[in-house]
Amino acid sequence: MIYFDNSATTKPYEEVLESFIKVSRDFYGNPSSLHGFGAKADQLLQHARKQTAEIMGVHPSEIYFTSGGTEGNNLAIKGAAVQHASKGRHIVTSQIEHPSVIEACEELEKQGFSVDYLPVKSDGSVDIEDVKRAVRNETILVSLMHVNNEVGTIQPIKEIGKWLSKHSQALFHVDYVQGCGKIPLSFEEGFIDLCTVSGHKIHGLKGTGFLYIKSGVQITPLFSGGNQESKMRSGTENTAGMVAFAKALRMTEEKRKTSIKHLWYLRNYLYNEILQIQGTVMNTPIDGAAPHIINFSIPGVKGEVLVHALEQVNIFVSTTSACSSRQKKTSRTLTSMGIPREQAEGSIRVSLSYGNSVAEAERFVSAMRNIAEQLSKVIRRSK
Amino acid sequence: MIYFDNSATTKPYEEVLESFIKVSRDFYGNPSSLHGFGAKADQLLQHARKQTAEIMGVHPSEIYFTSGGTEGNNLAIKGAAVQHASKGRHIVTSQIEHPSVIEACEELEKQGFSVDYLPVKSDGSVDIEDVKRAVRNETILVSLMHVNNEVGTIQPIKEIGKWLSKHSQALFHVDYVQGCGKIPLSFEEGFIDLCTVSGHKIHGLKGTGFLYIKSGVQITPLFSGGNQESKMRSGTENTAGMVAFAKALRMTEEKRKTSIKHLWYLRNYLYNEILQIQGTVMNTPIDGAAPHIINFSIPGVKGEVLVHALEQVNIFVSTTSACSSRQKKTSRTLTSMGIPREQAEGSIRVSLSYGNSVAEAERFVSAMRNIAEQLSKVIRRSK
Repeated sequence: MIYFDNSATTKPYEEVLESFIKVSRDFYGNPSSLHGFGAKADQLLQHARKQTAEIMGVHPSEIYFTSGGTEGNNLAIKGAAVQHASKGRHIVTSQIEHPSVIEACEELEKQGFSVDYLPVKSDGSVDIEDVKRAVRNETILVSLMHVNNEVGTIQPIKEIGKWLSKHSQALFHVDYVQGCGKIPLSFEEGFIDLCTVSGHKIHGLKGTGFLYIKSGVQITPLFSGGNQESKMRSGTENTAGMVAFAKALRMTEEKRKTSIKHLWYLRNYLYNEILQIQGTVMNTPIDGAAPHIINFSIPGVKGEVLVHALEQVNIFVSTTSACSSRQKKTSRTLTSMGIPREQAEGSIRVSLSYGNSVAEAERFVSAMRNIAEQLSKVIRRSK
Repeated sequence: MIYFDNSATTKPYEEVLESFIKVSRDFYGNPSSLHGFGAKADQLLQHARKQTAEIMGVHPSEIYFTSGGTEGNNLAIKGAAVQHASKGRHIVTSQIEHPSVIEACEELEKQGFSVDYLPVKSDGSVDIEDVKRAVRNETILVSLMHVNNEVGTIQPIKEIGKWLSKHSQALFHVDYVQGCGKIPLSFEEGFIDLCTVSGHKIHGLKGTGFLYIKSGVQITPLFSGGNQESKMRSGTENTAGMVAFAKALRMTEEKRKTSIKHLWYLRNYLYNEILQIQGTVMNTPIDGAAPHIINFSIPGVKGEVLVHALEQVNIFVSTTSACSSRQKKTSRTLTSMGIPREQAEGSIRVSLSYGNSVAEAERFVSAMRNIAEQLSKVIRRSK
């Protein structure tokens, strides 16, 4: 099997699974319990928090473990909106955010907030001038993703954050789910107040992640209760999941340091080879994108058809994001980039991890070439 | 180690860990992905849902997997309140609910809802007459727990649900976290609309659980996004966690069928022996309580002191619920039962699982006898 759907989810590292099992088996106490068996679990939890904070370059008290990216984004956006509604009810985001951001904003619109969904340029990036125009006195939150999950475009987070820090009281939330482990992001230099990371996108476990909440930033929790995670996320802590998260983050960061060139090599090889296949059009920009996502189309052929044709030769890719794939709508991201409907409907996403090999990339190109050739015959015949 | 803190959390079954690892390793695809590797994960997920539903006697489409009890309670209460606010803004609950219920209600009070927190009788049970008096035309939700987590009292869920079904439009939410696997509860006979269960209380994994939402009942989700779990709980599904949950539930139900008498034997043995220790007072009623929780006090001795004294001989119990233990407040449950402050402050909770043995119970009694004797000398001396 060639697994090229790493932006949907990744295979957990064996060491991550081992950590999870060890903690679940030997340190299953409730971290909130008064006794020493609970305290041991709490120590592991705080160690995981410390490790995570060190890697992200922040303070441990700024790391709030969650059940993943969707919870992190919802907590950041709804939590900030509810908390700061008295200061203003305006939010700025973009048209190409993950459904958990866009739909959280749409939910807030129902509750009387107003939201600007900024357009993007043809390369999928937000124009900082659009941010400047959209932000008003009553803007309480700007939420933008770092690496787009469908095409891989990197947003100018640092520039936008810097401008916001000087010209607005709005909190700045960044969805870092796709960028983490691939493109470093300084929360400090980006003047980021809230930042979402998910475990299962970096070879950790599903149901794990964290929300960074900058020291001093106030938001309203989604879960009320036992006041775990410094009152921000009540509920018995998933100690084993959090330890597994910290291990996945550490291992992914190590891979980044040793293997980022390998990932770029794969990406550039695939990018160039795919472009040479007859009938293909690239949706991912050549520059300003992450090294693990390539989105392209064969206009006139539905993305779904390509996904299933590749599956016949045991290669797994996706059309759009997994979170949107069931809805069978044309990708909002591609539409916002000005990509024609027929091209958007024919798009597929290839997403890589450090574990993918050159041989896999070569097999993909060869398979894609065959599929394109066969399809071109069918298309010719049907015309 | 004698682990008598099973109401705080339980040791996961080995088979549960094995299932988790197998699914995480071999079926890590995203259940929402279009390709067959995702579809395999989705099949496992739907099988886990079907198994869970069968055991609970409900339809698979009524099971919504969550990250645990706190999420389930928050989703049920806040979700019902937001959804039905136009019909009324009144909620009925009790004074002895889990913090995730009480604090969710308090949060709703801040948003303009009004909440009646019913008192309880001296045995910890809610008087159905109090429910009848509290429910008004504008009551949209009644939320009551099945088995109290601190003293084990069983609430008259069936009677209350039946009355509500005839006299009110309010939704009926039941926190079944402590009862599940110990005391069967028919959601149908209890006219239950929403019901919370947690995985780590039944030898499953932390970060797993479900909310039952009766077919036709509408609530507003807490997480917006990819519309997983029939739009009720967006976010990549924790397939392995859910498979592990279904396994834990099945195994616990099997244990209940084969070993419930053993659990009652342990409970009654401990109950009687503890009562004979000088200075002890029982907080758990002899009748109408679950077989796994015994709460008692040595008035004049802080519960914390007892917890640590038992820990010295490798026995682990708790004072109040783990979710409240860090807050060092006097137990709201015991106070509501009319238990004097000194007695409430001296309380500890012994909570059992099917895996505990008679030998462990005997060792506990012997240890408790020694501790009580030594404490009585100290108390005598200090008087």
